[in-house]
Amino acid sequence: MEILKKSFGAKPLTGPFPVYIIGYNDDQEIPNLVAVSWAGMVCSEPPCVSISLRKIRHSYLSIMKNRAFTVNVPSLNQIDSADFTGSISGKKCKKFDLTGLSPKYFDGYNAPFVDEYPVNAICQLMHTIDLGTHTVFIGEIKEYLVNENALDDSGKPDIEKVNPFIYDINSRHYYSLGEKKSLAYNSKKIFIKEDIDE
Amino acid sequence: MEILKKSFGAKPLTGPFPVYIIGYNDDQEIPNLVAVSWAGMVCSEPPCVSISLRKIRHSYLSIMKNRAFTVNVPSLNQIDSADFTGSISGKKCKKFDLTGLSPKYFDGYNAPFVDEYPVNAICQLMHTIDLGTHTVFIGEIKEYLVNENALDDSGKPDIEKVNPFIYDINSRHYYSLGEKKSLAYNSKKIFIKEDIDE
Repeated sequence: MEILKKSFGAKPLTGPFPVYIIGYNDDQEIPNLVAVSWAGMVCSEPPCVSISLRKIRHSYLSIMKNRAFTVNVPSLNQIDSADFTGSISGKKCKKFDLTGLSPKYFDGYNAPFVDEYPVNAICQLMHTIDLGTHTVFIGEIKEYLVNENALDDSGKPDIEKVNPFIYDINSRHYYSLGEKKSLAYNSKKIFIKEDIDE
Repeated sequence: MEILKKSFGAKPLTGPFPVYIIGYNDDQEIPNLVAVSWAGMVCSEPPCVSISLRKIRHSYLSIMKNRAFTVNVPSLNQIDSADFTGSISGKKCKKFDLTGLSPKYFDGYNAPFVDEYPVNAICQLMHTIDLGTHTVFIGEIKEYLVNENALDDSGKPDIEKVNPFIYDINSRHYYSLGEKKSLAYNSKKIFIKEDIDE
């Protein structure tokens, strides 16, 4: 049976997209925040993350100058403060002050992380690529912090305790994380009956 | 009260991470697939997506040569075939044949999309950046297709009908999409009482 498809031309993907809150210091050394969803991990060793920012953003020149930013993952119960950081320009207001969130610093990096958010990655800017409306900032994660109350019994980050949320570009709504499903890299036996030499 | 944090040093972020299935043609023009989670949107105009691949991957040289790949978003009920594409090298087997998925082509691009998966983005390779274990491939989305049965009443992609799933690097499990929560960019009034000139 033919599968009917609608063509959208050159358009962004349907997610799922993360909600990462970027910490930076502006040109007056005032800590500020901005939300991004065009973002993700890009390398395992060294661990690198990419975030994309519009050139008009307050954050853009500040991160270019300081060569540092933080990536903070908020929990679902922090959705209002996280959403706020994406709702207004850092030129207009000090978002740490207005939300009551606490800027903290990791030695040697001129970018604040959000103490209350359960996951914080302190990044050194390594590459930028101008693509059009957005410029990609690739940062190497130099230090990765997780709140003690978001760890599992073995001391690893527990995604259910972090409880991140997801952004849907089409409905412009956030979604929670759902239920735990199957173990990854475990389906070979379903599709291959004979042994394949690996 | 002080927030206790555990330091992990230089480590990848805790997600949420997407599960995108990449379609490519190998050096013998055989269509194949590989799963990635180091991936995301990186630009709105032109729409660009990044995927990261290890150099040892079968897909790596093929995409370099063809300058084209597809990004396909599977539904939760397609989790087994999607997981399989990340469980074994394309050097060892033809994953379209083994899973029964159908390779289709969009005019002018030498990379197969997965007809059964609800979201397909046909991409032209624009940039590569070698970061270490992984190389970032930035593709411009030239055509974006969504299954008719994954659209909402207004004809837009409906994330609940697409029903994508998420990968958790720490537990190595997949998670479903959860519940619809608040509307984005709607929290200004919570934190700002007076009008700010925008």
